[in-house]
This record gives sequence, structure tokens and C-alpha cells, in this order.
Amino acid sequence: MYKDELIIPKDEILNRIERLKQLMGLNGLDYVLILQNADIFYFSGILQQGFILIPLKGESIYFVRRNIELAKKYSPLKVERLKSNKQILEYIDDNTTVGMELDVLPFQILKGYEKILKVVNAKIEDCSAIIKEVRQIKSELEINFIRKAGLIIKNVFMELKNFIESNKTEYEILCYAQNIAIKNYHQGFMRMRGFNQEMYFGHILSGESGITFGYPNAPTSGFGIYPSFPQGSGFRKVKRGEIVSVDLVGCYNGYHCDQTRPFAVGIIKREYYENFNRVKEIIEYLEDFIKPGVLWEEAYFKANEIAKKMGVEKNFMGYKEDKVKFIGHGVGVEVDEQPFLAPGFKKEFKENMVMAIEPKLFFPVLGVIGIENTYLVTKDGLERLTPCENKIF
Amino acid sequence: MYKDELIIPKDEILNRIERLKQLMGLNGLDYVLILQNADIFYFSGILQQGFILIPLKGESIYFVRRNIELAKKYSPLKVERLKSNKQILEYIDDNTTVGMELDVLPFQILKGYEKILKVVNAKIEDCSAIIKEVRQIKSELEINFIRKAGLIIKNVFMELKNFIESNKTEYEILCYAQNIAIKNYHQGFMRMRGFNQEMYFGHILSGESGITFGYPNAPTSGFGIYPSFPQGSGFRKVKRGEIVSVDLVGCYNGYHCDQTRPFAVGIIKREYYENFNRVKEIIEYLEDFIKPGVLWEEAYFKANEIAKKMGVEKNFMGYKEDKVKFIGHGVGVEVDEQPFLAPGFKKEFKENMVMAIEPKLFFPVLGVIGIENTYLVTKDGLERLTPCENKIF
Repeated sequence: MYKDELIIPKDEILNRIERLKQLMGLNGLDYVLILQNADIFYFSGILQQGFILIPLKGESIYFVRRNIELAKKYSPLKVERLKSNKQILEYIDDNTTVGMELDVLPFQILKGYEKILKVVNAKIEDCSAIIKEVRQIKSELEINFIRKAGLIIKNVFMELKNFIESNKTEYEILCYAQNIAIKNYHQGFMRMRGFNQEMYFGHILSGESGITFGYPNAPTSGFGIYPSFPQGSGFRKVKRGEIVSVDLVGCYNGYHCDQTRPFAVGIIKREYYENFNRVKEIIEYLEDFIKPGVLWEEAYFKANEIAKKMGVEKNFMGYKEDKVKFIGHGVGVEVDEQPFLAPGFKKEFKENMVMAIEPKLFFPVLGVIGIENTYLVTKDGLERLTPCENKIF
Repeated sequence: MYKDELIIPKDEILNRIERLKQLMGLNGLDYVLILQNADIFYFSGILQQGFILIPLKGESIYFVRRNIELAKKYSPLKVERLKSNKQILEYIDDNTTVGMELDVLPFQILKGYEKILKVVNAKIEDCSAIIKEVRQIKSELEINFIRKAGLIIKNVFMELKNFIESNKTEYEILCYAQNIAIKNYHQGFMRMRGFNQEMYFGHILSGESGITFGYPNAPTSGFGIYPSFPQGSGFRKVKRGEIVSVDLVGCYNGYHCDQTRPFAVGIIKREYYENFNRVKEIIEYLEDFIKPGVLWEEAYFKANEIAKKMGVEKNFMGYKEDKVKFIGHGVGVEVDEQPFLAPGFKKEFKENMVMAIEPKLFFPVLGVIGIENTYLVTKDGLERLTPCENKIF
């Protein structure tokens, strides 16, 4: 029923598990127990209700409460009917160490498993770091899904060119954009790993909305239309002579991409172009700079250095004290994954990492002027996966 | 900037906190520290990045990283700029007990706070039960938000009447429904408390999709369009003579409602009407039966008893072994809240509880035939908050 191209082949699933097992070995884990949706999809090929037990030695098992038929049909893993979480005890040896996703598992859920695993005196350790490390290297298939997410977003951007005009509200533009996105098979529902992180298509903002920061861990926020969900497009009417910043997340078969462009509403002032050229220069510098071996944080420092030289340091990635401390983030089955282009991350870029880079400038009156593309790290440098031109639309 | 009617008045916020404090007293909690988005919105009036410290005695403080201006403008709480989580230590006395949302807080996040609170030798306990207890009783204002969510969904249902026809796919119908919903100011993003629970507008299903169970903790699931998010509408084409089950969640200023109706595609067989009359009989029985004082689980048992008498027990709330063990759930700032109309819940319905009741029947060929309304418990019984007629559309 799902198209063939959406089905993750057995070799690929086994390769993901094999790479995890190597890291399990290095980290002294005898088992990994995968409970979270994004990780279940990644390691099984189809999300269903249950969990995956990956032993360091031996065959992985996908325990499924429901739908067991779909799991058997679309996952190459061995599938067993899950009736009670205690079933794992049949597979876990005494006095072993079990890795669990302690970065996302709620405390009370974990307590339940702790109680079960106590029976075999198993120790629980955090395996989220090694899961993230496996997931950060993408396969051809995954890169292709991200490219398709990029095409969805490209289609939206192309149609927005004719739709955005003065007197429309940000929210009207969002409704239109969202409708095109889902008609192009955008997944609609998006996943973030961070606690309390919430995502709904992205941020279409203008004027002061662009410089209104909020609860998302993102450079922009905006007002939204409700105090209950104060992010994204609001009721501000776009004016002639302004730009509208369109930052949208694409999603195809669970894989995300992220792209931002400013859209001019009529004839705009030179200031907009000048600042757009600044972020364009920064992103194009990074396109050349980032290669396998470069450290993630170096990209952040380089971008800030250039912004400083340009005299726009206080406007870069926020305004005054309201700044985010990153200029890019990995994307994959979650919107917030490795690599993080942020200070403190002294890890190297590697071939087949995929990330969004989003230099953005913030001004009290102009709002936000930014650019964002999603890139693949190749052995020669970066390759764009989101195909729109680096220009004001 | 937000409309006046969206702003939660000071009295209401203080009343919510007062009711929490009463339960804190009974449960030996000196403080409650609120970190999760839905709870932050509920107790502050506007979601921002930060947390709320509620002391048993004294003034509550909303610590906000950003946006501090919006928090000050739209929350009646005392707002302080959050620079470090350690700031709470200035407010927490030695050797006290701090309640935290252990049902939703990820283990690693909790560990961070444990480390901080150790400095004052504070003990952490789960306060999720008392938060749920406060939230289950709705105010006039909240009931009004839920009514508005109901109106959004009513508008969608009215327009779907003219849109649903044979040869359209479930997914086309979803795209159309969703677009009407957001044009009517549906929040788009919906909140669920349960780990791994994901919600995207609802389930528009036909034929075998209606009887395809999956990972959501809901009676229906469907295939969706991707193995990464296998729920909701798929590419199945609706046929003449079938029904389409439309189950949509409304959301207005963070408050949800839930409603289901079957839509006839052309002239449908008597079997559909017969089964619709069965679920209609069950829901109308419960409309009379549920009153303050009745136990939540009694509603579940009564519904099952009636289904058994009707001879459709094995088709009720799932099929054979794939059944969910509830016939209704509270709605409010989350879609899955108290009261739960499920076995094991020996708690009484109280005035001003709000919940969705959703008796549904499942058949291998017909698919799902169900009805769902959102109700308010009044002193005399139930009052409907979703205003659509109990009929096949």
C-alpha cells in the first residue's frame, strides 16, 4: 500500500543496526531498547506501537502491540506480538547493561522499565548519544527523502511568489503555503527531539513579528494567533515595501528539510538587499568552508566573525540579549539533530551529514532578513539539497 | 495584539493556582515547579520559554527566558527574567518537597533539576496527578474556548458535506478539511500528554482503512501516506455506497474538542444505518446516564453492556483483540486528559468536567461506523459542546 520507494530495504536497516552495535560495543552496552517514535521508525522502517530490542550479539526484535501485520509487512526486522513489556525478560541476560533513550523518556515510563529490568539485575544507561551518532550519517535513500522534502518546499515557494502581496496577513499566507505543502504530500506532522519543542510548518513573518522572540529554540518565533501557541504567523498585515521572511520545514516520509527566503512585497529599500547580501555572503562562505574534518563549532565562530567584520554582530542570530547560540542544525527524522553548528561542539563534520544553515539578521524596524538551505556534506564540501536560488524572491 | 477574549484574567489564573495549592497541602508539597508547555500555558495564560514556581505559601513566579515582554503583558503572574535554572534556589527553602511533572519530564531534564535541588536538600515528588485533577474542572472561559473549537469543526463538517464524493481519496478530503479548519483559526498544532502520542487534525477513513489499527492510542488509526507517520488519511479512493468516517479534533487557543460523524457517499446500505443507530443509541444512553457522582468506569461498562445486548460486542471499540479500553477521554489543553471513561477509573464525574465520548463499531468490510461528541458535565447531566446533529451526514 505504501509506495515501494518509501520502504526501507533490509540491508539499510541492518546497516543502521550494525553501526549502532559497533558503538554499543565501545560503550559497554549489551542491549539497546528503542522506545521513541522517531527512533522506532529509523531502526524498523515503519512506526508502530511497541519497541525494538537490539542485542549486541544476535537478532534484533521489533515487539509490536499493534499493528502487527503492518510491522511484518514493512519492517525487515523479526516481529513479535507484544502483550506485556515483561516479555523482554525472556531475551535479556542477567547482570547486563541496557541502553535506553534517557534524553526523551519520561521519568515515569523509565521507572516502569527499571522495575522490569531489576528482575534480571540489568543496569540502565543512556544510549541517546550513540543513537544520535548513528543517525547523523545519512544513506543515499535518506538523502533522497530529504531532497524530496526540499522539492515540496520549492513548490510552495514558487507558488508563494504570486500569492504574497500587501494587505494579506501573515496568517493568510501561512494557510495558503500549508495547503500547497500538503497537496504536495508534506507529512504535516513534524518531529522534534527537544523537550517542549513544537513545530508547525515554520515561520512566515513580517516587520516586528520577525524580531519577536519566543519559546521555540529557533532564531525566530513571531506571535502566532493564540497565547497558547505563540509562534509563527499572526494577524499582522504585510505592507508594500517590506519583505516577508518565509521559513518552512519540509517533511517527506519522516525526513525533514529546512529553508528560508525573504519575499519582497513590491519595491523594497536598498537596506533589505544590503542585509540579504550579508547573510548570502555568510552562507556562501560556509558553503566553501565546511568540509569533512572541520569542527561544527568552527562554522559558528566563522559566521559570527564575518558578521562582526560586517558591523552587524549585534543583529546576528537574534538581537542584543535575545540570540540563539547556533547557526545551523542537523535534519533527518527529527528537525533538531546532529550536527549542531554551535559553540562547544568540537566534533568533526563527516561525509553524509545533513544540516540546515541559517544565517539571519534582525533589525527593530526591518524585522528578520535571513537565508537558510539544507546541505549534504560530501567529501569535497557542501552540496545543496534544497534547490531554491540564493536570492530575495 | 491577541484578542481580549483570548487573555486569561488574573482571577482565573489565581483560582487555578489556589486549587492546586489546596491539593499541594493535602499531598505534602511545599512547591510545584511547572515545566511542560501545556501546563505552563494553563497556569500562566501565555506559553513562553521558562517555568513557573508555585510555592504552597506566597506568590507564584513565572521565570521566563524569552519573551519576557510578552509574558509580562499577557500573564497576570509575577514575571522574572530567567538566566539560569539555579535561580530557583533563591526561592526554595531547605529540606522541602518540590512537585514536578514526572509523567512527562524526560529523565535527563529531571536529573538536571535534581542536581540543582540537592543544594537545598529538596526532595522531588510527582505532582502530575494533582495538576490533572485541577485541570479536569473547567471554567466558563475554558468551556467557551472548547465551544469555539466545536464551531470550527462544525464549519468543516458543513463544508465536507458538499465535498465528499466517490473517487476522491481520503487524503484529498483531509487536505480540504484541514484548509477549512485553519481558515477558521484552528490552532493547527495540537497537544497530547501521552509519551509517543502524535496528533494531526484527526482521522478521515473509509472501508478497510477504518478497521486498520495502529500506533495511536485511539480506536482508529488508518494507514496515512507514509510508514513514518502511519495514521490518518491515506490514498484509498472513496467508493459510491460507502461511508467516510470523519473524526476531527478542533483547537481554539489551546483548547481541544473531538467529534466524529460518518458521511454517506451516495445511497448507502441499510447496514450502515443499523450500525449508526446502535452507536447513536449508546451515546444517547450515556447522555442520560452520566451525571455528577457516576463513576468514570461505569460509563465504559454500561456502553459495553449495551453493545453486548445488541450482539456487537466483538465489534465495539476495535475488532477482536485490537480494541482500545476506553469509550471516552477528557479534553482541554491536551487531547488526552481526565476524565478517562475506562475500566479501573473509580472516580466520580464532577460538574464542569469536559470529555469526548466516542462509541464506535468496526466491521471487516464496512470499516468503522462511529459517533463522537464533546460534552460538559452539568449538575443535571451532559450538555453538548460540539453542536452537530447525531446523524449520518
